[in-house]
Amino acid sequence: MDVVKRTRLSPEQRRAQLIDLGVKMLAQRPLEQISVEEIADQAGVSRGLLFHYFASKHDFHLAIVRHSSSEMLARTAPDPYVDDARDPLKILRSVLAAYVDYVSENRGTYVSLLRGTASGDPDMRAVFEETRAKMSERTLEQLPILGVERTPAVELTVRGWIAYVEEVTISWLRDPQLTREQLIELNVQALPALAVAAAPEIAAALVAATSASP
Amino acid sequence: MDVVKRTRLSPEQRRAQLIDLGVKMLAQRPLEQISVEEIADQAGVSRGLLFHYFASKHDFHLAIVRHSSSEMLARTAPDPYVDDARDPLKILRSVLAAYVDYVSENRGTYVSLLRGTASGDPDMRAVFEETRAKMSERTLEQLPILGVERTPAVELTVRGWIAYVEEVTISWLRDPQLTREQLIELNVQALPALAVAAAPEIAAALVAATSASP
Repeated sequence: MDVVKRTRLSPEQRRAQLIDLGVKMLAQRPLEQISVEEIADQAGVSRGLLFHYFASKHDFHLAIVRHSSSEMLARTAPDPYVDDARDPLKILRSVLAAYVDYVSENRGTYVSLLRGTASGDPDMRAVFEETRAKMSERTLEQLPILGVERTPAVELTVRGWIAYVEEVTISWLRDPQLTREQLIELNVQALPALAVAAAPEIAAALVAATSASP
Repeated sequence: MDVVKRTRLSPEQRRAQLIDLGVKMLAQRPLEQISVEEIADQAGVSRGLLFHYFASKHDFHLAIVRHSSSEMLARTAPDPYVDDARDPLKILRSVLAAYVDYVSENRGTYVSLLRGTASGDPDMRAVFEETRAKMSERTLEQLPILGVERTPAVELTVRGWIAYVEEVTISWLRDPQLTREQLIELNVQALPALAVAAAPEIAAALVAATSASP
């Protein structure tokens, strides 16, 4: 009797284990090639038991994508304890370094989710939309540090900037002509540049924030 | 005998007529709801004849998307004969006004293609990728006017700017809190702002180009 395979797990642990195996497999192949049979095999459970936790293959794939998205959000959470929290560019730089590293480590996953078959599925798209909305919200929450007002133009700009970062990073993965540092800097500098174009009063606030630093 | 329905068309004309009917229908509903039967009916031909021109429903849908994309590219071609061709912002403004108007008139089509089921189809995605590549290329072709060098960072920036414009415009269609003019200006100003962030020497070139205008 295989002890490893027969390990008793609580329902929550089993569900988490199956998702975790799916996320690992997603790093190596596109979502549509993740087979329920293989995952059940790796977990040492029957296909039937897997379908006890997930209503369908689609439901299982959706759980994998949701988990991947929260992992990315967790990895890229802004750190208010970076050296100088008064410098919003420093926070931004650490967020984008984490983003670029996450996407580089999970390039198969990320490109297949954003530009693959999954991008045409309404439920998957809802997960990406939600992820983007959270990334926008986080960015917008930093505005008070700069004394910048949250206007519709600023909100649109932040959404657009996230699309910019995604596109630039995916293009870079395909053809990395810049270094990691240059890519991060390109993504970082884009935000204040766009913000200044959307609301010129931000320029003054940025200058003030910079000169307030020691 | 119905003269209109029985009009004799050359194979090229018939093909164009079928695509044209598809494009019109796409303005009102998502691609996956475009029925071959309805189109054949409207053209007064049999379903069999339609499949003489298009190998499958997917092939017909792809022809519609290709036609839509070239129409958009034609509508948004830069006009070197705008009042002052030495002012690249003027050319950019007229291109983006045409883009925003095209997308507004075809919002059903555009949103369904960029964010709908079609976005998950590899052939459809190839059409969008090609369209984006052409939009990038057109923008990059304007660089010599500014004496700006085409570096990998500048190329990435232009690709990212197109993703920015798409996202901002789609978000605006869903919740139009800015006027058409404000949206166009937001999209226009984003490009020099991003370009300056990517390559600071562009700032000097822009100032020079502006002061060279009468």
